[in-house]
Amino acid sequence: MFRVTVRDHVMVAHSLRGEVFGPAQRLHGATYVVDATFAGERLDDDGIVVDIGRATTVLHEVLADLNYRNLDDEAALAATNTTTEMLARWIADRLADRVGAGDLGAAARDLAGLTVTLHESHVAWASYERPLSPT
Amino acid sequence: MFRVTVRDHVMVAHSLRGEVFGPAQRLHGATYVVDATFAGERLDDDGIVVDIGRATTVLHEVLADLNYRNLDDEAALAATNTTTEMLARWIADRLADRVGAGDLGAAARDLAGLTVTLHESHVAWASYERPLSPT
Amino acid sequence: MFRVTVRDHVMVAHSLRGEVFGPAQRLHGATYVVDATFAGERLDDDGIVVDIGRATTVLHEVLADLNYRNLDDEAALAATNTTTEMLARWIADRLADRVGAGDLGAAARDLAGLTVTLHESHVAWASYERPLSPT
Amino acid sequence: MFRVTVRDHVMVAHSLRGEVFGPAQRLHGATYVVDATFAGERLDDDGIVVDIGRATTVLHEVLADLNYRNLDDEAALAATNTTTEMLARWIADRLADRVGAGDLGAAARDLAGLTVTLHESHVAWASYERPLSPT
Amino acid sequence: MFRVTVRDHVMVAHSLRGEVFGPAQRLHGATYVVDATFAGERLDDDGIVVDIGRATTVLHEVLADLNYRNLDDEAALAATNTTTEMLARWIADRLADRVGAGDLGAAARDLAGLTVTLHESHVAWASYERPLSPT
Amino acid sequence: MFRVTVRDHVMVAHSLRGEVFGPAQRLHGATYVVDATFAGERLDDDGIVVDIGRATTVLHEVLADLNYRNLDDEAALAATNTTTEMLARWIADRLADRVGAGDLGAAARDLAGLTVTLHESHVAWASYERPLSPT
Repeated sequence: MFRVTVRDHVMVAHSLRGEVFGPAQRLHGATYVVDATFAGERLDDDGIVVDIGRATTVLHEVLADLNYRNLDDEAALAATNTTTEMLARWIADRLADRVGAGDLGAAARDLAGLTVTLHESHVAWASYERPLSPT
Repeated sequence: MFRVTVRDHVMVAHSLRGEVFGPAQRLHGATYVVDATFAGERLDDDGIVVDIGRATTVLHEVLADLNYRNLDDEAALAATNTTTEMLARWIADRLADRVGAGDLGAAARDLAGLTVTLHESHVAWASYERPLSPT
Repeated sequence: MFRVTVRDHVMVAHSLRGEVFGPAQRLHGATYVVDATFAGERLDDDGIVVDIGRATTVLHEVLADLNYRNLDDEAALAATNTTTEMLARWIADRLADRVGAGDLGAAARDLAGLTVTLHESHVAWASYERPLSPT
Repeated sequence: MFRVTVRDHVMVAHSLRGEVFGPAQRLHGATYVVDATFAGERLDDDGIVVDIGRATTVLHEVLADLNYRNLDDEAALAATNTTTEMLARWIADRLADRVGAGDLGAAARDLAGLTVTLHESHVAWASYERPLSPT
Repeated sequence: MFRVTVRDHVMVAHSLRGEVFGPAQRLHGATYVVDATFAGERLDDDGIVVDIGRATTVLHEVLADLNYRNLDDEAALAATNTTTEMLARWIADRLADRVGAGDLGAAARDLAGLTVTLHESHVAWASYERPLSPT
Repeated sequence: MFRVTVRDHVMVAHSLRGEVFGPAQRLHGATYVVDATFAGERLDDDGIVVDIGRATTVLHEVLADLNYRNLDDEAALAATNTTTEMLARWIADRLADRVGAGDLGAAARDLAGLTVTLHESHVAWASYERPLSPT
């Protein structure tokens, strides 16, 4: 299996709902350093599993919808308790949509799956790994 | 699959038994930067795979039994050649016990597995990955 | 010159005032990974420039006043545009007060200065370096 | 599953063939920080999955064939478009040959697989994971 | 003293002239992860030492002149043995020119100096620190 | 000012003398990731401040005298409370001796100073900076 990862980041405010979160129920914020990993069994004729330039661009575009925002006020996340796990899945699903729409190019057609990892500090991170359907 | 990782560290002395270890057969020591990764297919009603606060606390407690010690003198490790691999498994098994005892909370009941990684330097690390039984 | 650094982090919401900040004028947030560096010309009789345990504790206490908060609502920061530079100075000045109050112990009496560095992402950080007066 | 990883690096010039690579079609270069991960279900009698000293030596030897070279001029890579993915596989296959030849020692006989990760910058990396046949 | 650092990277081919460089006299390459640090005694009215957005853009523009190139063929570097130290100075001097030209904005007028650090691998890096004249 | 840094590591056992050290008075251990920084105002005719290959070799040799040892039993350190600060100075002074003896080559003759940083974990490190006399 081949895997290619690109890194970007996003800076957001939010609050978490549920007693389990203690002080993180207050409005606070985070920098998430975001790694998007694209996995595939085969390389295309150029010898790549995904165009790293397009992957970088698409990840940046997906994060732009969150960046410098208060997630508590975003309609797209109104039904979401924006834990690190939930955000990882939300970003992974947006990236999967973009792969399906052909935005990552021909090489991405054979991708088997993708993983999104959000580093919330130097001592904690979370990820969501999901399969991709051939298109 | 969702995964949450928390990081801590432990500073120990030890020696290794076996000619393969060369100079590491002498009494020496290591800082292990320890990553504990908890994996689960589903999020609980709060949107988490594990309570990151509890995970941090339990990892710290497990490491406290080793920290600032000479592992050659620890009864709990008397039968163990304390290689990085063996320590990774020992810590993973202690964490699994704590999950089983309910110390990581309700969210941890559905965990599918955990991985413990010990970084012994900037150029070498080892991990042990094991499944968890539903409780 | 000897220098000792300890690392912790803080997760906050805030907004910045001024057109120069563009989208960061909106309410957003950040994880700051915070390094506090203590500098001194001489070691004490124990061979340390500062008690690393106390330094870790005092840094954690200073950050606790900011952690999981919206800085826009904090009275102590009402007059402060909470840029990374300003926060670095604010934290450094709080640490200097604690050194002056003797909270870092006898070894800290001869400290010559301290530096606080705030990493706001993997691609940007800021620091403030200031002298300390002998006490 | 146990995994042991060792890290080294290699500095090369090369150019990539294909319009998808844009400016990287020009002769340029890269430092690849290379992680070789060895995975096995069982530990040997010494309590290791692989001799970390031998793993470090063999990885260094494999990289020595590439280091400080223009890959466009290397006969061994003449048929290879030297993308990060392709180089990861090339290195992994060389390491697999060395495992098969017994160069990683008795402990390596039961290895189940290996993964080679090439970090081309702080924001992009690629890996190739392959199984190993018991010898 | 306040300091702000932004990070980017550049991927180049080159060779070094001089027996001291051994195999690095051959055409090879490097990824340089580049940190540009801007230092100033005072903050401007916005509370910044430099506009981090502009600093990021200007660093990227300076590196674009080198990126994906063979430095041996660049007229601007014809007289330069492109060691890591020399490249750090070359980049720092270009950045100083841009500060002087006002491209980093009003806040940058009071900068006291800047430092450019080039990381050539995980185990080696070099930097050049220079003063800036008030403009 | 130019600065060149090379990184290596050392794994040792030791205990610390003094109540301030709490549990670190027990025999324990550490991995120190060691950065040696060489600073000079001028480059030599080859365009370097120090031969990075020689710097790497000499640092490795200095650390070899400590590696895989119990520092409590080392005659050379019998009078030393082996705190991170003290070890940083000890290593820096050994490196200064080697510069004085000409072991870092002609380029090192004009070095102005050196700094040794010991990272004892991901959250704590210490350094010692000292001048060098022209030879």
